[in-house]
Amino acid sequence: MRDLNVQDLENLEVGAGILGTGGGGDPYIGKLLAREQLLRGKKITLVDPKEVDSESEILPVAMMGAPVIMIEKVPGGKEVVKSLEYFEKNLKESIDFITPIEIGGVNSTVPLAVAGMTGKPVVDGDGEGRAFPELQMVTFHLGDIQASPVAMFDERGNNNIVMATDNVWAERIARSVTVRFGGSAYVALYHMKGIDYKKWAVLNTITKCIDIGDAIMDAKRSGRNVFDALLDETGGVMIFSGKIIEVKREVERGFARGSTVIEGSGEFRNKHMRIDFQNENLMASIDGEIITSVPDLITILDSETSVAITTEHLKYGFRVNVMVMKCDERWRTAKGLETVGPRYFGYDIEYRPMEELI
Amino acid sequence: MRDLNVQDLENLEVGAGILGTGGGGDPYIGKLLAREQLLRGKKITLVDPKEVDSESEILPVAMMGAPVIMIEKVPGGKEVVKSLEYFEKNLKESIDFITPIEIGGVNSTVPLAVAGMTGKPVVDGDGEGRAFPELQMVTFHLGDIQASPVAMFDERGNNNIVMATDNVWAERIARSVTVRFGGSAYVALYHMKGIDYKKWAVLNTITKCIDIGDAIMDAKRSGRNVFDALLDETGGVMIFSGKIIEVKREVERGFARGSTVIEGSGEFRNKHMRIDFQNENLMASIDGEIITSVPDLITILDSETSVAITTEHLKYGFRVNVMVMKCDERWRTAKGLETVGPRYFGYDIEYRPMEELI
Repeated sequence: MRDLNVQDLENLEVGAGILGTGGGGDPYIGKLLAREQLLRGKKITLVDPKEVDSESEILPVAMMGAPVIMIEKVPGGKEVVKSLEYFEKNLKESIDFITPIEIGGVNSTVPLAVAGMTGKPVVDGDGEGRAFPELQMVTFHLGDIQASPVAMFDERGNNNIVMATDNVWAERIARSVTVRFGGSAYVALYHMKGIDYKKWAVLNTITKCIDIGDAIMDAKRSGRNVFDALLDETGGVMIFSGKIIEVKREVERGFARGSTVIEGSGEFRNKHMRIDFQNENLMASIDGEIITSVPDLITILDSETSVAITTEHLKYGFRVNVMVMKCDERWRTAKGLETVGPRYFGYDIEYRPMEELI
Repeated sequence: MRDLNVQDLENLEVGAGILGTGGGGDPYIGKLLAREQLLRGKKITLVDPKEVDSESEILPVAMMGAPVIMIEKVPGGKEVVKSLEYFEKNLKESIDFITPIEIGGVNSTVPLAVAGMTGKPVVDGDGEGRAFPELQMVTFHLGDIQASPVAMFDERGNNNIVMATDNVWAERIARSVTVRFGGSAYVALYHMKGIDYKKWAVLNTITKCIDIGDAIMDAKRSGRNVFDALLDETGGVMIFSGKIIEVKREVERGFARGSTVIEGSGEFRNKHMRIDFQNENLMASIDGEIITSVPDLITILDSETSVAITTEHLKYGFRVNVMVMKCDERWRTAKGLETVGPRYFGYDIEYRPMEELI
């Protein structure tokens, strides 16, 4: 158990951007929210899952919706606190810990802001080890943990509670409400006991983000090649480098869907990489040949600053590097691939682990 | 207080079709649901609002969605009972009475079926004195009674609770969930005390429906002109007669929207009436000139059988009569017209009471 400081948040911002694979909202906005709490003298306590009792009540909190819209509507921690209060009121039992549902800008830091506001500690882990666009795309789902009740709030004070028969229906219903809320919602869901969290969460991912950020900062200070440091820290592989020459993006049924094309440079000269995304980066191909896909993590980085670029910030002319990292092993099981494999997203290809492809 | 019999349900079917102004779903299906309860030996008790205590807990129950879809998915009383149970569980207090939210096929009879299933009596009245397409279009809304919580179920067992900041937001959110449920939902909403019901409901409308049905049946038996009997009973006016030559209808964002054109016959020869609808009939014009509009009641009747034709049953070639009836006075107030007047539905015209127009 330890209290996070402002430097941790800076590092987390960097690391969450990289593991967020383009989604989860703007890491910068997320950091501001959490940092405000520290500046007000509040504590943000991070707890190792080992320290969590099996009978503890754990509640993931998040923002749902298209990241493009999350940027426009600066996320409010207060609305997320409301969703936590809903659970406490209806459980008639106190929530012991909050936790992120995924790793990615806003969604790895909103729980920290809520921790500051409520004094609840945050368990170090999440439900994905990365970011994914839909509610059922969490390791908790693979463990048959129910997303419902899903408590949803908007910034006007509207509230909606989804009690679905399964997690795919929870996604469908909550998504339609998110669209009606104006494209984003503050949610709490997958309420569970400590024993389930310890079995099904991807553990210690907040620390992992902080460590990634730290490694990058450290490389910058020491003059070491930042990308080398990043690849060392994450076990990732650099798969492309070049200039963005096309970005297509539209908000459709509550998601930011689109693609970007990168014109290769250096060793990738005369080649083109296309990356498709739905909130998060889904698939990367070079000149029509698929290089890698979900559930492995595809991240686009600014080649100048080494900062990860979220899908909503992709822009013509940016010079970028593209890297891929290994996903949590559970995503590679049959149920994992059924939930988040390329076929789920409409690509008629077999998933092949990044280690085989590259 | 009296127990309804099978003949009452037959009469109610006829009367609810006429006051339903084309909407509220198929009266026949609604009748079957309620009749099944009587045939099983259950009681359906109708209570005069005068007999209702001010402190009583009253809950309107209904089906929400496009009537076209309500026909395909035969309405289930059980799902509506679930929404009632939700309220009892969360109020921790028993619901004393149920009541219809509107008059119109399924929605005037579903509460009767629920009465049979649960033994709860039905208060004789509703929130419209007719049918309207949206949740906030009830006299309860004019009395500032909150629709929320809106408890919604689908036939799969999915449940959703809307707690909106106002009734227009309740409509927006519940509508999006209804669409996601597949186009229809079983709902309970506008939970209120007896004192509010007695002040804001349109009273004794179930009896009014039964009386209309009875008057028509009586005319048929005695050989009297059925339409004359109907106009006498309702104070309505016949405004057109002819053959349907066009029907346009599409289900759009959870509503059945469209229009029908009737080629005049007899005294209306060489004239054409157009009726626009959104679940319910909204406006009638002859050769481009507006004759009458919401909130007054426009009903299309089969000229052969005198049965009201719901918007989803309109068909080329049907020979029909069109009648208009006076709406409840509260719909003619400023807030009433703001809520259900022609401008709300996108017609840039001033509402004029049917008495002035015809």
